Amino acid sequence: MDKLGIEELIRELSTLDYQNMYSSDFLLTWEKSIDEISATFTVAEILRGMREQNISSRIFDSGLGVSLFRDNSTRTRFSFTSACNLLGLEVQDLDEGKSQIAHGETVRETANMISFMADVIGIRDDMYIGKGNTYMRNVAESVQAGYDEGVLEQRPTLVNLQCDIDHPTQSMSDMLHIIKHFGGIENLAGKKIAMTWAYSPSYGKPLSVPQGVIGLMTRFGMDVALAHPEGYEVMPEVEGVAARQAAESGGRFTKSNSMEEAFAGADIVYPKSWAPFAAMEKRTDLYGKGDMDGIASLEQELLSQNKKYMDWTCTEERMATTHNGSALYMHCLPADISGVSCEHGEVEASVFDRYRVPQYKEASYKPYIIAAMMFLAKQKNAADVLQRLLERGTPRAF
Amino acid sequence: MDKLGIEELIRELSTLDYQNMYSSDFLLTWEKSIDEISATFTVAEILRGMREQNISSRIFDSGLGVSLFRDNSTRTRFSFTSACNLLGLEVQDLDEGKSQIAHGETVRETANMISFMADVIGIRDDMYIGKGNTYMRNVAESVQAGYDEGVLEQRPTLVNLQCDIDHPTQSMSDMLHIIKHFGGIENLAGKKIAMTWAYSPSYGKPLSVPQGVIGLMTRFGMDVALAHPEGYEVMPEVEGVAARQAAESGGRFTKSNSMEEAFAGADIVYPKSWAPFAAMEKRTDLYGKGDMDGIASLEQELLSQNKKYMDWTCTEERMATTHNGSALYMHCLPADISGVSCEHGEVEASVFDRYRVPQYKEASYKPYIIAAMMFLAKQKNAADVLQRLLERGTPRAF
Amino acid sequence: MDKLGIEELIRELSTLDYQNMYSSDFLLTWEKSIDEISATFTVAEILRGMREQNISSRIFDSGLGVSLFRDNSTRTRFSFTSACNLLGLEVQDLDEGKSQIAHGETVRETANMISFMADVIGIRDDMYIGKGNTYMRNVAESVQAGYDEGVLEQRPTLVNLQCDIDHPTQSMSDMLHIIKHFGGIENLAGKKIAMTWAYSPSYGKPLSVPQGVIGLMTRFGMDVALAHPEGYEVMPEVEGVAARQAAESGGRFTKSNSMEEAFAGADIVYPKSWAPFAAMEKRTDLYGKGDMDGIASLEQELLSQNKKYMDWTCTEERMATTHNGSALYMHCLPADISGVSCEHGEVEASVFDRYRVPQYKEASYKPYIIAAMMFLAKQKNAADVLQRLLERGTPRAF
Repeated sequence: MDKLGIEELIRELSTLDYQNMYSSDFLLTWEKSIDEISATFTVAEILRGMREQNISSRIFDSGLGVSLFRDNSTRTRFSFTSACNLLGLEVQDLDEGKSQIAHGETVRETANMISFMADVIGIRDDMYIGKGNTYMRNVAESVQAGYDEGVLEQRPTLVNLQCDIDHPTQSMSDMLHIIKHFGGIENLAGKKIAMTWAYSPSYGKPLSVPQGVIGLMTRFGMDVALAHPEGYEVMPEVEGVAARQAAESGGRFTKSNSMEEAFAGADIVYPKSWAPFAAMEKRTDLYGKGDMDGIASLEQELLSQNKKYMDWTCTEERMATTHNGSALYMHCLPADISGVSCEHGEVEASVFDRYRVPQYKEASYKPYIIAAMMFLAKQKNAADVLQRLLERGTPRAF
Repeated sequence: MDKLGIEELIRELSTLDYQNMYSSDFLLTWEKSIDEISATFTVAEILRGMREQNISSRIFDSGLGVSLFRDNSTRTRFSFTSACNLLGLEVQDLDEGKSQIAHGETVRETANMISFMADVIGIRDDMYIGKGNTYMRNVAESVQAGYDEGVLEQRPTLVNLQCDIDHPTQSMSDMLHIIKHFGGIENLAGKKIAMTWAYSPSYGKPLSVPQGVIGLMTRFGMDVALAHPEGYEVMPEVEGVAARQAAESGGRFTKSNSMEEAFAGADIVYPKSWAPFAAMEKRTDLYGKGDMDGIASLEQELLSQNKKYMDWTCTEERMATTHNGSALYMHCLPADISGVSCEHGEVEASVFDRYRVPQYKEASYKPYIIAAMMFLAKQKNAADVLQRLLERGTPRAF
Repeated sequence: MDKLGIEELIRELSTLDYQNMYSSDFLLTWEKSIDEISATFTVAEILRGMREQNISSRIFDSGLGVSLFRDNSTRTRFSFTSACNLLGLEVQDLDEGKSQIAHGETVRETANMISFMADVIGIRDDMYIGKGNTYMRNVAESVQAGYDEGVLEQRPTLVNLQCDIDHPTQSMSDMLHIIKHFGGIENLAGKKIAMTWAYSPSYGKPLSVPQGVIGLMTRFGMDVALAHPEGYEVMPEVEGVAARQAAESGGRFTKSNSMEEAFAGADIVYPKSWAPFAAMEKRTDLYGKGDMDGIASLEQELLSQNKKYMDWTCTEERMATTHNGSALYMHCLPADISGVSCEHGEVEASVFDRYRVPQYKEASYKPYIIAAMMFLAKQKNAADVLQRLLERGTPRAF
């Protein structure tokens, strides 16, 4: 994208109503307006364009981005660090192994103690149903109180890097990929996306990806087909959100227990393993009671249940049933690829290989999506600021 | 604080004699003159004021701040990183699990190897009596030698982030909090502070906090009352320092075995658990001999000894005996709060809650105190440099 | 070095043919031309000179340096971080414990996932024969493909921070030290360097140091004498490289099983423990099969084999047999020093102590060597850019 293209996007941005994102957190996509979602995509593309043009988008001379990962993660970690670095923030990890976060009382204390110079806090907490998003809101309230009470000089904004309910940085990257693929957000109405469960020999993959997808894609008039074996339901609240949004946007939200049905005529397929919602709730209870034996036997139970559905896999045969036999295959990565990373997995190697490069591009949007979320939370007049950065023209690399 | 306030503080700073701090380490507060202590407070407030005014105080375009923590720490880690970041230094951790620091020989070698581009080294080493501060001095000598011999381009300065003797970044933050609370350093003379032991169900809390407090507060004419059960003595050398300083400053330093006596009429109370000095010495010996059974049985012994003094806790009833019943309650955090973080602890929940926000503010000074220590070690004419930074007016955030 | 000295070096640099280093990786010194090796030394010295003159050499406003260490390392880690920081890059570790790099497939994926904003990737992977350098080339191909396919905005360049074959950042630092010691690269012809095995009570030290030394020093007309006990051969391919280069440069490359022969009349001695190549190959096989018992018994075997050669140590007596009894003693550090870090080791304490400061200086070149490798990979017209940085004159520290 050249400078004129960037300026065009800045003009587009200036027509959107995004000012309420200033000083706010990004926790669930469905809490954001269509304009705010669009602004996030637009800022992400502007930031990417500026980087391609070697123009610095640093808006911080100093400042910290705090990362709090309750789960190992290479990809999200690198995306968050990249986003912070792009805007001028240094990342400081809060390693909870070295901390004492245990109950409500200390969440408040720790949230304040790490935020004296924090501009952003990125949290990934997706392991226990009913916990992750709640924890994020506790942190948000704590830093808001700290700011109001004069403890903090600034109110750090939160970015949800994956919780039990939503995975907004993933679903937004996925969607930006779809927008680019179909040549614009205006072309998405009526496009069918199959968000389907797929078999994996592993256990306990989070629900936030399918939930994030049905919670976002239903807003743009798409035909969202959720499919999974019986017993692999996602959170009913999110299904409710999806149904409501589909109705509002003139799209469709359907559920089935058939991968075939979902794939039939689909423009996009997103086959991916996840754990049943009810089992994850049970696991959360067992964890709360410290019942490690119970967790181990639940794991065995789920793994053997999974095995009943080994035919839920994305084959060439199934791909042939999609729209023109050429649906866009998507995955949040890493995928379980049959014969490559496991014997039987979510997808056949030939399908995966054909879509490898598009998927890597899909992943490449994530740092920009995160940076855009931060940018809009930090700059009330984002369009003006971007125009000034463009004019400033500081080279990113000499 | 507005720009005029900042300029007023810069003028104040320029009247102080702080130039000897240039290129020196900050290891014990009582090695610093009154002017140097005052300069540290003043620079801390200026840096905070500048940040509030969105004015960058970066004085480094590149450079490293090395952190060496021999003890897990979230709060001090974040404070150190924040201070480094504020001045433009990137933090690199020296994780000793990955290193070979074992004896005098390699302290010298490692100190040089990590310092090729280090401007500051922050060390926390508070676990063993007679070790932490000594280690810091070994590192200081090693980097001085490296600089003199032409190995290092610059001589990194050391900041004591807590040792076996003192905790200067904590006691200085505590004191800045007191200064603000009483409206100025000139109002401290005669104010009574009760530095008292308090019961905690845990073991081996470092002595550096009470020692740091009696070693600093006695310099400003305060009435410092140290109280603890028999057998919970702090290091005699530090008591000696406190007594001498109290005499010099027109203050008072008393010791007792009565929490009541210390609290009576106090303007400030600082009830906090610590381990007996003699026991910590014994533990250091056992550790030196690798006698892990000995350490385990010492721990049991100390925990059961602690239990005899469960009534040493900061209750509402005791708070009522302080000056006007409204002494300022202080803690270095995290506190053991009865009924919250433990069954019986250092303080009643209602007392803690009433002082929660002031305590968080107390903690918020630490990054600025650390940054001020670094600033004064790196800038001979700190007042001039601060004035120039103010005039440069680079925004911290766009 | 003053500004005139720096400008002189920049003029020298502009006469060298180094443009092919642009966008290339630094994996083996013998893949680089003499001019490219010289340019690396020159840029290292310029960068050091600029730092001494407090002139910033930041060429990045933002950007990441990714470090991937498959082995614990304090020194290399600090050198890499220092180099990145000097040029303006923030380091992000790829901790493989938290990642899933397992086979060819995912090397490609991970390499792309960590590189969205990476300008440099530094890799240390020296544990398994036939693996480390191969892995680096896989990563290099993966990011090249990612760049060509439009996944990556920039193609990160790789720096070999130690592999199974070469240790270019070490051997180049060693050589810069030698150049300075003998007053110029033009004085090296005919100088004898004894690269000898030495006894250590530990096991499995990598071969990359001796291989790196014989693979580099043979290019400058030096007389390189490799000596080790029978059975401690290095990789035959590297010996072949050394022999060919010695012939081309008018130098000499000899092998013997005698420390005496190597030391006799030497101008430089580099006594250092390493593991036999054949044993390391066997270990790689055992590791591949997951045969941990086999590895443990191999370790015992090698340790007892080592013991047969305890007299292979750098004594004062042997030092007396070198040229004028005053050869330059070198070590990559940390050394096993007899009576200090172990009972019997690679070197007598009095020898080590006499050369301590020179060795620390030797080590101090490493950050600049790494920075020079990065600089030349990132700036096609490095001489011009350095001249402009000098004229820009941004102070590194205020």
